[in-house]
Order: sequence, then structure tokens, then C-alpha cells
Amino acid sequence: MDRTPDMTAADHIEQCLSRIARHEPMIRAFAAFDEEVVRAEIARVPKSGPLAGLLLGVKDIIDALPYPTASGSPLHEGRIPAADASAVAQLRAAGAMVAGKTVTTEFAFFSPGPTRNPHDLSHTPGGSSSGSAAAVAAGFVDIALGSQTAASITRPASYCGVVGFKPGHGCYSLTGVGALAPSFDTLGLLAADVRTVSAAHAVLAGTMPEAPVVEARAPRRIGLCRTPWWGQAETSTRQALETAARLFSADAEIVELDLADFAEGARLQAAIMAHEAAQSLFAEMQHQGKMSPVLHRMLVGGTRISRHDHLGNLRQAEGMRARMAGLVADYDILLAPAAPGEAPSGLAATGDPVFSRLWSLLRLPSITLPGLTGPAGMPVGIQLLSARHRDEDLLAHALWAEALLPARPRPMLRETGQTP
Amino acid sequence: MDRTPDMTAADHIEQCLSRIARHEPMIRAFAAFDEEVVRAEIARVPKSGPLAGLLLGVKDIIDALPYPTASGSPLHEGRIPAADASAVAQLRAAGAMVAGKTVTTEFAFFSPGPTRNPHDLSHTPGGSSSGSAAAVAAGFVDIALGSQTAASITRPASYCGVVGFKPGHGCYSLTGVGALAPSFDTLGLLAADVRTVSAAHAVLAGTMPEAPVVEARAPRRIGLCRTPWWGQAETSTRQALETAARLFSADAEIVELDLADFAEGARLQAAIMAHEAAQSLFAEMQHQGKMSPVLHRMLVGGTRISRHDHLGNLRQAEGMRARMAGLVADYDILLAPAAPGEAPSGLAATGDPVFSRLWSLLRLPSITLPGLTGPAGMPVGIQLLSARHRDEDLLAHALWAEALLPARPRPMLRETGQTP
Repeated sequence: MDRTPDMTAADHIEQCLSRIARHEPMIRAFAAFDEEVVRAEIARVPKSGPLAGLLLGVKDIIDALPYPTASGSPLHEGRIPAADASAVAQLRAAGAMVAGKTVTTEFAFFSPGPTRNPHDLSHTPGGSSSGSAAAVAAGFVDIALGSQTAASITRPASYCGVVGFKPGHGCYSLTGVGALAPSFDTLGLLAADVRTVSAAHAVLAGTMPEAPVVEARAPRRIGLCRTPWWGQAETSTRQALETAARLFSADAEIVELDLADFAEGARLQAAIMAHEAAQSLFAEMQHQGKMSPVLHRMLVGGTRISRHDHLGNLRQAEGMRARMAGLVADYDILLAPAAPGEAPSGLAATGDPVFSRLWSLLRLPSITLPGLTGPAGMPVGIQLLSARHRDEDLLAHALWAEALLPARPRPMLRETGQTP
Repeated sequence: MDRTPDMTAADHIEQCLSRIARHEPMIRAFAAFDEEVVRAEIARVPKSGPLAGLLLGVKDIIDALPYPTASGSPLHEGRIPAADASAVAQLRAAGAMVAGKTVTTEFAFFSPGPTRNPHDLSHTPGGSSSGSAAAVAAGFVDIALGSQTAASITRPASYCGVVGFKPGHGCYSLTGVGALAPSFDTLGLLAADVRTVSAAHAVLAGTMPEAPVVEARAPRRIGLCRTPWWGQAETSTRQALETAARLFSADAEIVELDLADFAEGARLQAAIMAHEAAQSLFAEMQHQGKMSPVLHRMLVGGTRISRHDHLGNLRQAEGMRARMAGLVADYDILLAPAAPGEAPSGLAATGDPVFSRLWSLLRLPSITLPGLTGPAGMPVGIQLLSARHRDEDLLAHALWAEALLPARPRPMLRETGQTP
């Protein structure tokens, strides 16, 4: 939280709203933002609770009244949901205040919205949780809901220099969240630090009010995963991974893991996603004129994967999950690249998901940590992962890792006079 | 399909509508039905496609315009969805015509709606897909969408004497379907025969227009599962299972399987469901006054399961799935009870889910077949299951099994003059 200890909750909120007023015209993190609605929300939400005083951004595939859920598509523009998503209801009941809906790529796939990277407005923030990552990086909100099917939390967290937590598949309720590929769709959190993520995680995952607070804990053994896609890692990502491994080796044994056996994982993830997305977006697919060519191509590709081949892909994915469960059991956490490098320049694409596809296929909990930077001074994240159903252990180790990494880079938000 | 070969599609529809007009006041299968809306639907839907001419019932936790999705609860009464569920859009595009929304228990849990069993109006139709099963049994619709988290397709199919198909978990899109416990929630189909189920399955699961038609195929080996709950099976269910095994043994080897190792499955399913339902229905749970005590108790119980215990349950469930995958690999299909016996008398409860909990936990494809009856002449189904991702093989073997079983019992719908 961007909040000094002696700042009152009211001052903190005013500071966030003032940052939004100044910088949102350039950053464009919000798909829907209305200061009057936010002020009514602030007046209404309970002042107690584990998330009291925190402003929340909600990715625009997730229902949050009174806003429509447009899912980054003209096809869903103005769609007012019947109710809050369960996760939004849970966070609101814990004291969080919805600041607005954050920009998503079209249906959480690749076609970008207008959001810019707060660290350099000429660079992509990554996607699909583009607005959530940018809003946290710019200090507009304390925490944001995002979602990941391929790389949609990990990559924007890495590019925007914030913490991005994707819990194990199935951990948070998806009621009121637009589906892309249910085999992988996972709701997650973006925030400035691990402690804020952990507080919101306890609300979303635990249904007990007395959910235990996560304490920092050093891992004994870390599996270092350069992954079969290491050849696609830029120098900045290679250096970030080596730097993190060196810092972590002060407390933990680092063992390099060969994931050559998992090289098919990226292809499998893409094929299963395409087939399932063609089911989820069946009705939308009939309106080619209101859909980006990149999404339409993916969906048509999905319909061309025969049922026989799709079932074969699902069986291969299950086999890989079983193999990874055996491998990861010997390590407290895995350390892996989060993205190929710094955020690419330009806003026409959101970067390459290659370093997350395997992990999304395997359904492991993942957290991306900021602190390291590349040659342009832009953030480069690292990714930690744990075994399935070890989300709280991962958060405890992430608290430890965060303390060893440099402080996250803060964007230098300037008055550029640029029109977005 | 209740349709003789020389009957025109228009005649068939008129016959269904006439049955609805005569018997729906007693059966009460529909949560929403409006003959004018149906006639407009009939005029609009394409006359070609694999499901052309079929009337479809849609369980009222599944979005289908122009109807609200009330989910059997005053809390959701009048909620008009933004769009059709993906599955409804797929079936409509294939030529199916929505006849109306069918009654669900409250949020697809246990608290029953007003539906009566068409075989005897003083008996429950089972639940939670109560209206879908009753509407098929009464000849109101050709096919109906149902859903299962514990036993919500298998049990009403058994009690109402219709075919109930629950594909493997994840097989059909859940976009626009109310969630109860995502670890198990599965959309499925009810119809009068396996061929109709198979035709709709090809639409929902395959995204290829040329999805292969399923042909009857005899299994070589059948695993006979009396299950650890055999002591709770009434004589009618015991006899149904033995009769089916005897009939099937003409073509296939029957091997009895000991599932003592899986006895914890029923408890695990109930515990995971309760914990996840408390997440899914978080907002609804805050309105105790508008919720049945049985549902509220289950949700409160879910919140009392600690995160630690819940994760332990998930790990146990995954272990059981891996053990079952090893076991089922040696058999083409499994044969198991579908419900404890005939539909219990009375409408205050929907019967015991015990014979489905394990299979829902294991996420296996399941099909319930009618044909056998109990001492009161009411239907008693049998359940066939296959390995994960063998849905089409299961349907092929179900076509074979259906031909060996007696014809399904038809309800004797009388003009009773009873007011519902």
C-alpha cells in the first residue's frame, strides 16, 4: 500500500483520487470510472474489516455494480450485470472500495485496450489485466482483481513492476467473471506488495474470518527453471533470473531443474484454450464484424481442433500435471522467468505469453515479484511458483523473497500534455 | 424423441404443447413457460441443423432469454440475464427451440420446487434438475439441460425414468450457468433416449460441425460397482443392478470391483461442495431470511471448514481421482446404482444423493438409463460410467445397453383434477 503509517484512510483515498485525476487521461487504466460513484462507495462500505480503507480496481470482465461489464468488446458494451461477482462481494464485505472497472484486452485475449504503461507511456502495460496492473503501478488503487488464462496476470505485473498473484486454479470463485477457457481461467490479485495481496487472498480463499495471516518464511530448496523457452528470454530477463537466484541463495539451496519434458506444454495450453474459448464465446463468434481478427482467428482455429484431438490434449495435460506434482514436491518453490524482457514498446500488442503458458496449463499457484529492471530502466519481474494447494506457503516464501529483492521501481509520472 | 417417423415437426410440437397445456398444472415442471414466447421461438429458430424440430427445457440456473434466471430462489427472482448461456446459444444455433425454464431446487441444492413426478404425482421427481427430468418424462420437451454438483442429473433421471447424461467435468461451457461448487459443477442433458442425448452432446462438446455420430458398441469388460453404500440400496435398486448385470453379461465380461478404498469419497464431496458453495453464494448467504434453513446450514458449515482442512480435502480428492484412473483403465464401463430406490413419496425432499457423490467427486462421465422398475411400478435407473475424456465411448456403450434393457416406463398421465 502506498501509504505512510500516519496517513489517515481519508487522506490516502484523496491522494489516490488526485493521482487518478492527474494521470488517468494519459494512463487510461480505467474502462469505467466515475468519481461520484466512488465517493458514494466510500461512504457506503464498512470502515472495519481486513481490507478497510483500500481502493480496489476490478478488471472489466468481472461484474461490479453499478458499472456495466463490457469485457473490452463492443459486443458486451453497456451490459449491466444482475449482481456483483462473488469475489467483488467478498472484497467489499471486507472493507475494500471499488474505484472503477479496469481495462481488459478484448475478452481477456490479446487485442489490447487503450492502457499505457505508467513507466513509459509509449510501452504496453501487458495484458490481459492491463488496467489492473497499470492502476496499481500508477498508485490509483491499492489492489486490483485480474484474471489469467495464459499469462494475463504474470505478464502485466512484470511489465508494470507490481506484484501479481495467480492462485491455484479453482481457488477463488468465478461467479460473475467472464469465461475464456475454463480449464485455465483463474481470478487473481495485483498490488504493490505481497502483504496486501495476502490480506485480500485470505478474504477470497478462506471463508473463515480468522484466516491466518501469512508470515515471511525462507524456503529450503528452490527449483530454478530456465524453462524450454530460455532461448526467447532477453538479456534483461536472463539477468533478472540470475540476480534473483544469487540473492535467494543466501538462505536457500538453488537446484536447476530441466523442464525439457514439459516443452509441449505451451502448445497444449494454446490448443486447449482455443478449443474451449470457441465454446465459451460461441455466441460472440457469430459477430465477426465486431471482433478483432486475432480473436476470431483463434476461435476459428479452436473449432478446427477435432474432439478427438482435444481429448488427447486434455489427457496429455493431465499427464504433465501428474509429472509436475512429482517434481515440485522436492522443492518449496520454483523460480522462473515472468516474461521475455521489459515491456515492448508500442501499444498494438501486449507482449508474448510464452513464459506463463506451461504454468497456466499446470494450474500451479504463481506470484510475480517486482524489483529488478532492464536496460531501459523498465521493470522486469521474476516468477515464483509452488505445488498445487500450497498457495499460502507460496505467499509466505514470496514475503521472504520480496525483502531480498530491490524495492519496486516507481513510475515517474509526468505531466506530458500528450493526448492519449 | 416421442415422435413417430411419419409425424411432421409441426405436429410433434403441437403434441408437446398440448401435453403441456393438459398436464403442466399438475406436474409443474416449468419455472417459466409462455406459449406465445414458445411460438415466437418456433418461428425464429432455423429449421435445419442436427437438433431441428426438438423442444428444449432449460434448468432455471441457466440463462435463456427472454426469461429471467431465478435459480429457485426469491433472491434471484426476476433477474433477466444479459445473454443466453453459451450452451443455450449452441443448442439454439443447432435448431433446438427453447420451450421454457424448468424448475430447479433452490440454487441447485436440496430445497425442492413445486415439481411432481409424472409417474406418481405424490412422489418427488428428484432434484436438483427436477423440472428438466419431469418435463422429459411427461413428454413436454424432447431434451432438457440439467446440471449436477452432487447427484442432480443422475437422481432425477432415475426417479423419472429418463436418460440422464452428465459428461466429464469441464466438457460443456458453464458461461451463463449459476455456480454452486466449481470443483464439481457440470452441465448435462436429459432426454427420452441415448440417441437424442448423443445428438445434443455432439453440439455442446464438439465444436466441429462434422462431429461423429455415436454408434452402439458392446463393451468387453464391465466393472460392477455395488459401492461402499450398497447397504443403503433398497431391494429395487439391488434388483435393478443385478438385472442389468445379467442382461449385459450376454455380450460382456462382468467383474465385480471393490471400492472400499473410495468410501471417504462421499464425505469429501460434501465437504468440498459446502466450502466452495460458501464462496459462490457469498452474497446470497447474507440474506438468511430469504434462504431455506437447509441451504443456509450447508453454507455456514462450509465457512467452518478451515482453509487448511479444505486444502487437505482437495489433495485427498486428487489422490482418489488418480487411483480411479488406474482402476477404470481396465474396464470399458462401470455399472453402478443411480439412486437408493424408487422416488420417495412426498415433495418435501428430493431423495438421497449418496450414490452419486463419489462419481461427482471423481469427475467421471456418467449416464443413467431407464427401463427397470420397483415394487410400486416406479422407475429405477442404472448408472454407467467411463474413464475421464471417454464421453463418446460411454455414449456408444450406453446405446448398446439401452437396447438390452426393457423399454422405459411411460407415465400414466391422468386428468386428476388435483390442484397442485
